[in-house]
Amino acid sequence: MITLRKPKVVILGAGYGGLMTTVRLQKMIGVNEADIVLVNKNDYHYETTWLHEASAGTLHHDRVRYDIRDVIDRSKVEFVEDTALEINREEKKVILEKGEISYDYLVVALGGEPETFGIKGLKEYAFGIVNVNSSRQLREHIEYQFATYNMEEEKKDERLAIVVGGAGFTGIEFLGELTNRIPELCHEYDVDFHKVKIICVEAAPTVLPGFDPELVQYAVSQLERKGVEFLIGTAIKECTPNGILVAKGDEEPREIKAGTVVWAAGVRGNSIIEKSGFEAMRGRVKVEKNLRAPGHDDIFIIGDSSLFINEEINRPYPPTAQIAMQQGELCARNLAALIREKKELEEFKPDIKGTVCSLGEDDAIGVVYGKKLTGTKASFMKKVIDNRSLFMIGGVPLVMKKGKFKFF
Amino acid sequence: MITLRKPKVVILGAGYGGLMTTVRLQKMIGVNEADIVLVNKNDYHYETTWLHEASAGTLHHDRVRYDIRDVIDRSKVEFVEDTALEINREEKKVILEKGEISYDYLVVALGGEPETFGIKGLKEYAFGIVNVNSSRQLREHIEYQFATYNMEEEKKDERLAIVVGGAGFTGIEFLGELTNRIPELCHEYDVDFHKVKIICVEAAPTVLPGFDPELVQYAVSQLERKGVEFLIGTAIKECTPNGILVAKGDEEPREIKAGTVVWAAGVRGNSIIEKSGFEAMRGRVKVEKNLRAPGHDDIFIIGDSSLFINEEINRPYPPTAQIAMQQGELCARNLAALIREKKELEEFKPDIKGTVCSLGEDDAIGVVYGKKLTGTKASFMKKVIDNRSLFMIGGVPLVMKKGKFKFF
Repeated sequence: MITLRKPKVVILGAGYGGLMTTVRLQKMIGVNEADIVLVNKNDYHYETTWLHEASAGTLHHDRVRYDIRDVIDRSKVEFVEDTALEINREEKKVILEKGEISYDYLVVALGGEPETFGIKGLKEYAFGIVNVNSSRQLREHIEYQFATYNMEEEKKDERLAIVVGGAGFTGIEFLGELTNRIPELCHEYDVDFHKVKIICVEAAPTVLPGFDPELVQYAVSQLERKGVEFLIGTAIKECTPNGILVAKGDEEPREIKAGTVVWAAGVRGNSIIEKSGFEAMRGRVKVEKNLRAPGHDDIFIIGDSSLFINEEINRPYPPTAQIAMQQGELCARNLAALIREKKELEEFKPDIKGTVCSLGEDDAIGVVYGKKLTGTKASFMKKVIDNRSLFMIGGVPLVMKKGKFKFF
Repeated sequence: MITLRKPKVVILGAGYGGLMTTVRLQKMIGVNEADIVLVNKNDYHYETTWLHEASAGTLHHDRVRYDIRDVIDRSKVEFVEDTALEINREEKKVILEKGEISYDYLVVALGGEPETFGIKGLKEYAFGIVNVNSSRQLREHIEYQFATYNMEEEKKDERLAIVVGGAGFTGIEFLGELTNRIPELCHEYDVDFHKVKIICVEAAPTVLPGFDPELVQYAVSQLERKGVEFLIGTAIKECTPNGILVAKGDEEPREIKAGTVVWAAGVRGNSIIEKSGFEAMRGRVKVEKNLRAPGHDDIFIIGDSSLFINEEINRPYPPTAQIAMQQGELCARNLAALIREKKELEEFKPDIKGTVCSLGEDDAIGVVYGKKLTGTKASFMKKVIDNRSLFMIGGVPLVMKKGKFKFF
């Protein structure tokens, strides 16, 4: 009898893609078939698509995260709390902050990073809706601005101005929460509501590019009604400690003073991709149909660091939670096949069920199974989607613990 | 029949002294006897002696304030929301921010202000436990420091250091709340408790000067056990954006880096006193025994801007809520006497029932009716005292609304 060494699967990142891969794989294979190691920098998973709520302060950040150990089968998966720094493809190992780990099969499911397009000052002075740390810092920063307003002998109204750079999904969803939160903040800190300014700056010629124009119109008018001022087709030229410089086309940049600038515009792949020598576009690797990196039979790349072309429109699918989770499901199946030495891998076929963009607690816009929705109906669907992603990872117990049930 | 003009009583400030004067006077005199005007910069009264809780974040700032209109009899008292800038004693009028107001009798019950003893940088960089605005700003500042800690690539432990300047009543009570709050903050922002530093710097040779030494020893050891480091007989020489410079005696000043510096040491009288030409020591007027300003039969000065000598020890009584409220009671009686053209005014005789210094939610030290107390007994008495001051101003309804009932 020959003793075979068990293959070792290392999954980097416990976001939507990595965690889905892990929970599916742990069900599919037996303890004796493979070693599975999940590496994540925190001991918790967070719902990236809920961060706009934690950032505005409408949902506590503990509600948007849960302990990874609660959803993994610890008899099958070893969890390592560490940060991946670089992948050494020749030696088949990953350099971590506190050590290194070798692999037979690697899943790179490390999330995206903000793309600032080289705009001066954004990294230094703008806040981000990127992870739990950045979201609660942003929430605290806004609260501090409101708390400070009445402390100054000469009141500075620009303290109460909030600029949101980007009218994409994150920007619009954050604005929805913010317009609900501002009246609460005004009450909390004795501030006149009319002193507060919310400005959304978007370089593209439209809000929510790619979304149905009728729904976009609905979203814009709802947010405008609640006090948001839109500067569309306008680029942020620079971010300073006092606000931003903007310009439309070639016009002379003008200053908008603001105590808070939020950059919610660009997402790129994880910087580990380039650092490890993968060929990539803005940190995203154009993966094969079976989700492996070209030329690497032992490396899968999924989620924000992968690029997968939608052949119908010949453009990449946007980096969404929906795609990342579907990729995780397929990745687990393909890993199981490799472990069992099957040659045939499945190809990834995204199944876009719909997209809903929240506009706050009880309003949203969306297209679900081809049907356009607005208002409470869309908002209901958004919560169903949020609960579904919990269910897919942690089943009913996780939905009961972290789900959204305030439907009406 | 001769029509007599009703005398007009103007009360400046709705703190402990001014509000007590108002609620007592409105009960004593009829609508036809006098006009009563209460002037206050906010439409709310706040419990100065509870601000250490709002500052640490252990009690919401809305719990430490209530609407002035809820406790005054609006058929008898006119409330003016405005800030007093200067008293014109010759023309018997008060210059307000938005106008002016004449008086026949004036009560100056404007609270004290922080005394920084000319220490460089304190005004610019230190936070204060002075009013609702400053307390919630301090709370938000500390939260922001904790929220920012995990956002920085190179973690700066000094962000988590909190320096409290002054080991008097306010400093010690704030430290008591802070030591209860820090574990919550660590949990909230994923910070290791051992990274947090709390340092109390006091220039005097002891903590809580004037307090029973045995009780002081108890307080110090309780706070040290919870992580406070005391630097006694040590002076703050300067406050900078990065922390403080301290020195013991003539030694070379050394730097203590801290993300938060709180100045809780000195109190002086209101600056309006000197601006209006009263003879004063650090903004406090040595009043006559009937609480009038020397040489002014029409002006009473009570609370933090008055100085009243304790003849037993030949030193002024400390500026406390207890004294201010007792002065308010007498001031109302003396005003009623003047309105009714009685010549004899009563003299102020403080009745010190006791003093309790809180060390957090369920601990305190105190002397009540001559008896020394520590721990839960003292903490219980502290809450009784807090509720009593509500009762004195607003009766049972105010106690029910704002009282402290979490006794054990």
